[in-house]
Amino acid sequence: MIVVGEKINTSRKSIEEAVEKRDAAFILKVAREQAEAGANYIDVNAGTFLDREVDCLCWLVETVQSEVDLPLSLDSPNHRALSEAIKCHKGEPMINSISLEEDRFQSLLPVVTSQPCSVVALCMGKTAMPATVEERVEVGSELIQKLTDHGMPLEKIYVDPLVQPVSVDTGMGMAALGAINGIMREFPGVNTICGLSNISFGLPLRHLINRNFLSLAISYGLSAAILDPTDKQIMATLLSIEMLLGKDEYCGSFIDAYQSGRITG
Amino acid sequence: MIVVGEKINTSRKSIEEAVEKRDAAFILKVAREQAEAGANYIDVNAGTFLDREVDCLCWLVETVQSEVDLPLSLDSPNHRALSEAIKCHKGEPMINSISLEEDRFQSLLPVVTSQPCSVVALCMGKTAMPATVEERVEVGSELIQKLTDHGMPLEKIYVDPLVQPVSVDTGMGMAALGAINGIMREFPGVNTICGLSNISFGLPLRHLINRNFLSLAISYGLSAAILDPTDKQIMATLLSIEMLLGKDEYCGSFIDAYQSGRITG
Repeated sequence: MIVVGEKINTSRKSIEEAVEKRDAAFILKVAREQAEAGANYIDVNAGTFLDREVDCLCWLVETVQSEVDLPLSLDSPNHRALSEAIKCHKGEPMINSISLEEDRFQSLLPVVTSQPCSVVALCMGKTAMPATVEERVEVGSELIQKLTDHGMPLEKIYVDPLVQPVSVDTGMGMAALGAINGIMREFPGVNTICGLSNISFGLPLRHLINRNFLSLAISYGLSAAILDPTDKQIMATLLSIEMLLGKDEYCGSFIDAYQSGRITG
Repeated sequence: MIVVGEKINTSRKSIEEAVEKRDAAFILKVAREQAEAGANYIDVNAGTFLDREVDCLCWLVETVQSEVDLPLSLDSPNHRALSEAIKCHKGEPMINSISLEEDRFQSLLPVVTSQPCSVVALCMGKTAMPATVEERVEVGSELIQKLTDHGMPLEKIYVDPLVQPVSVDTGMGMAALGAINGIMREFPGVNTICGLSNISFGLPLRHLINRNFLSLAISYGLSAAILDPTDKQIMATLLSIEMLLGKDEYCGSFIDAYQSGRITG
């Protein structure tokens, strides 16, 4: 399971303040904590800075990579921000995200093919959000086709099924889960990824719901997740599910994480 | 999801003492709490009393049913205890459990066919514990065949895949999950049931592992579980998983349980 640490996002007030003040020590602390908790990528998002996003995102990339030896997930819908940030990045970043929306696809394609990287392919159609499993698989398949046609290796594509709240439509859990399963079966070697918090929008006990959605998503084939790796309950869910599915030899990762205090019931 | 409340079992010290002293008030309190928490059946087990099991089990049946209007799960491998307890029981009990072990099957068959009841069919072979998914499905199928041949309706059969610890063999989670899935696909209408605590034997954070195993089992098709319905965390897992799988209209059961304090994160 590939974990993308989600905490460096300027929609969080403490991060926004740190970016505004160019407080590198604070950003590095949040990056290091996520790395130590098991993140494989550190997500950086400066979306709230609007016309200053490009500068802020590049500063975040340089700051985090000055001390933390992990690739970053460059998180923006803005092709200008991404094309600058990818140049500042050492190694292979994850570009988060491309979609079928016409402008977004055309403007991001040159970015993701400009140098080796992974890419999150969000199941957003040309003009509309997909509703059903079938629509999601169709959009995901078209994205995979177009990206591989342009030379992107299958295993560097992370399809995001676009998770929507079950409080709005109780079929939305299965819509995302079915899409994960469908994409993973149809394209062996591809990855699937999603964030967890949308699913529980409008409901009580959101962290609990998010954790249980992660369990289900892993059992339907999800291979990567954007989450807070310093949340010991969600990491306990992730590691116990992998153990129960037979993917943790001698239960070693679970027991190690318990003994080092990285997970809790 | 059918919930069998597991708490009235004399392997628990407080229950054993209450049965020894014929403390009906205590037993009724434990029964009522489980009923209020959402149990569909109340399990009663007096196995630790050995040669006094028959008397103790009948006393438990009569005591619980004197005030709690739920069917019971009569829990014993002993056909004499079960044949007496079923006579004391009002309504249709669940008999827990029959298996393919020669003596057990032959001695219990007349009991489960003597009057309307449900029955737990444990995937224990004639002479050996099954190891793989295939062996479990084979034993479960043979039990279903034999029981339906003797007039037991399919929907009253609850196949238990026999859960064994992942600490002993990391394949044991998938062995049980695969068997649940296989049985539910092969025999539409049949039920599957299991206890949760065996899976986590020998590991830390057992309650967490048990909860996550329940999530997986439900997603693989499990239709009933033997658990402690007064455990607000396990009930939160159960209800959130059902909601995420689209089985809770308007998220009503989840929200109700939250508002009435029956679940917690």
